[in-house]
Amino acid sequence: MALIVQKFGGTSVASTDRIKSVAKRVARWQAAGHDVIVVPSAMAGETNRLIALAKEISPSPDPRELDVIASTGEQVTIALLAMAMHGEGLKARSFTGSQVTVLTDSAFTKARILKIDETRIRKALAEGNVVVVAGFQGADEDGNITTLGRGGSDTSAVALAAALKADECQIYTDVDGVYTTDPRVEPEARKLDTITFEEMLEMASLGSKVLQIRSVEFAGKYKVKLRVLSSFEDEGEGTLITVEEKRTMEEPVISGIAFNRDEAKLTMLGVPDRPGIAYQILGPIADANIDVDMIIQNIGRDDTTDFSFTVHRSDYSKALAILETVRQKIGARDLSGDTGTCKVSAVGVGMRSHPGVASKMFGALAKEGINLQMISTSEIKISVVIEEKYLELAVRVLHKAFGLEKPPKSKLGLTGRDETDIITPS
Amino acid sequence: MALIVQKFGGTSVASTDRIKSVAKRVARWQAAGHDVIVVPSAMAGETNRLIALAKEISPSPDPRELDVIASTGEQVTIALLAMAMHGEGLKARSFTGSQVTVLTDSAFTKARILKIDETRIRKALAEGNVVVVAGFQGADEDGNITTLGRGGSDTSAVALAAALKADECQIYTDVDGVYTTDPRVEPEARKLDTITFEEMLEMASLGSKVLQIRSVEFAGKYKVKLRVLSSFEDEGEGTLITVEEKRTMEEPVISGIAFNRDEAKLTMLGVPDRPGIAYQILGPIADANIDVDMIIQNIGRDDTTDFSFTVHRSDYSKALAILETVRQKIGARDLSGDTGTCKVSAVGVGMRSHPGVASKMFGALAKEGINLQMISTSEIKISVVIEEKYLELAVRVLHKAFGLEKPPKSKLGLTGRDETDIITPS
Repeated sequence: MALIVQKFGGTSVASTDRIKSVAKRVARWQAAGHDVIVVPSAMAGETNRLIALAKEISPSPDPRELDVIASTGEQVTIALLAMAMHGEGLKARSFTGSQVTVLTDSAFTKARILKIDETRIRKALAEGNVVVVAGFQGADEDGNITTLGRGGSDTSAVALAAALKADECQIYTDVDGVYTTDPRVEPEARKLDTITFEEMLEMASLGSKVLQIRSVEFAGKYKVKLRVLSSFEDEGEGTLITVEEKRTMEEPVISGIAFNRDEAKLTMLGVPDRPGIAYQILGPIADANIDVDMIIQNIGRDDTTDFSFTVHRSDYSKALAILETVRQKIGARDLSGDTGTCKVSAVGVGMRSHPGVASKMFGALAKEGINLQMISTSEIKISVVIEEKYLELAVRVLHKAFGLEKPPKSKLGLTGRDETDIITPS
Repeated sequence: MALIVQKFGGTSVASTDRIKSVAKRVARWQAAGHDVIVVPSAMAGETNRLIALAKEISPSPDPRELDVIASTGEQVTIALLAMAMHGEGLKARSFTGSQVTVLTDSAFTKARILKIDETRIRKALAEGNVVVVAGFQGADEDGNITTLGRGGSDTSAVALAAALKADECQIYTDVDGVYTTDPRVEPEARKLDTITFEEMLEMASLGSKVLQIRSVEFAGKYKVKLRVLSSFEDEGEGTLITVEEKRTMEEPVISGIAFNRDEAKLTMLGVPDRPGIAYQILGPIADANIDVDMIIQNIGRDDTTDFSFTVHRSDYSKALAILETVRQKIGARDLSGDTGTCKVSAVGVGMRSHPGVASKMFGALAKEGINLQMISTSEIKISVVIEEKYLELAVRVLHKAFGLEKPPKSKLGLTGRDETDIITPS
């Protein structure tokens, strides 16, 4: 018998029929003797509908009041789910974030969880209930309703799992796990049985939008066992996101190929090479609330240097206009930009101990004549910015180059997965 | 400067445009120096939508969970209203029933208010806010969300007015006040400036559905000054529902003619005339959750009597089937019923001190050849059951007979209204 937190996203609870399916699934877990806490999102489209309603009143609605509205989406789902569980003969009880209480700070629309009071949940579980807790929401210490921002339900689930020391936190989504890359780009992409938190973080931030990145950080920090599963298939054990590196020598160096289509590149040419110049360039960009992804500055020549960075494509025009002002101020020579770029990355904790990953990657791309415009590396990933038209080709080439289509071998006849880890509904 | 509670029904907040209109109206009251607490219902149709969603999951959803869902309707409106007020340059802050707290018992879907904590409202008012409180909802002492049942927002408003000792509780509806009868039946129907609580109770229960009957009882009990106004007209002072009888000698005996179209009549004939027989007949009816309206039993003849009562037309078949079982058990002679009936009533506190009201009423109806099937009287009303086809005729005849089309005269040149009572927005 284990304590399981199960999170269901908006598409998994998009209709009353789907909500009934979720209830049936939960019933199987409870029948197997497990305690279950269910954390649903709002029904697909509902949060958008509510926010659109608020925008009809005001283009920039008060954040406190926006949270009062937005939180109703999950409030509806928890009650519908509890009812559906009653229909399956289960005892079930719903709780809003305020009722739990999921205590957050007062940063409305993007609050952070500070503390979860487990009293009411423990009591309801002890009484034999499936406990249904609204994701995405909490309350600050004055009792104001807060929300955690988009995708916050993942974070709610992980935080609950951490607070209650759950045996596993299962994130049900519309995919059946984390893949070596996007199967729509590379048909031979393979589902991973396990991935480390660090790899998952790199994969998530690079555009594999299976899990909310904050929830992965949270799970890593609090050592919550996180599993990604499909809510539409009854079989399959998804992908386990592991804290430790339970890997054998033969484990692959690279776990996956991530990519991001929406990159735009900006370069300021002939920047005076003096201390503080990076801040002078990026400060105004940050002030305009534009997220910067890759940043590249090479060593200078002739007292000047070239400074490049990438932003989301939708921020490109805004960033360019800001840079022009900065360019005149600091006396840089010129400005160039490109919205026809993308980013492709190889991710894997194995590269720490395996030299030569970068050269293997660059070699494979060079063989196809793909020019590398920017290169950036971290401990466990190598990213390159290339022309967007080469995206699919680059992903397929790298997937093949690192042998990702083949399941990992092991000297001891074990997979990377520890079989005792598996919790099943029966 | 006064403290005013303003309640807006579902049609008054049916769209974001109407919500903006409400905000403008509130702004005028605040500009005049008044403290305002606004209590909205859910947007028209929203509560029905939410309940339909619940019924898709279960035909008889768990009441606790149903309240979690149903309460979101008002939660959305309070935030939209607060945002709209910000748009008018006002400070405004919304509170759910749980946040206030509006403490209720745990009778989910039909909870009763036990106590209102005024702390947060007083604080928000002191900070210069318009306070927007969700109608229809509260929380029990365990923090479970409760709702007060249909029309509960009126009750919320009156309860808040009572708890905070507000100077006036204004109920904004789609009519501009309480009329002497339904203007669709009698075009000469006249808006009343004042009506007593007792009269209002009789009018409401008889089908003049301007105000929720519970809220009128509540207002009477706690001496809350209640006013019914139109939310679609800026002019007009509506109808004040008075605690005391501020009336002169010349005040009319009858204040209004109420009617109810949906009556069905049932009669058990030849019932053995012995103690306990009424309970034997009505007990099973009550057990089946059928509301009984009028009950008539005349003195017996030959050791038997005839026993009649009326129910809502939709309960007629069910009631008839129950009565047949009862008839056989108690050995009554026969059963008869009629769904083609209606009830017409004359209501007025004046009839206490004026004899002859009944004979005047019966005479007026007799003159038109309208047969009285049942008669029932209380301190301040006389009701008759007649054939439904005579309903409109009877209403018009009685309206005329009691001179209701003419405004009340007064020896002292005063209307029944004390002018100092009027609170205006400017």
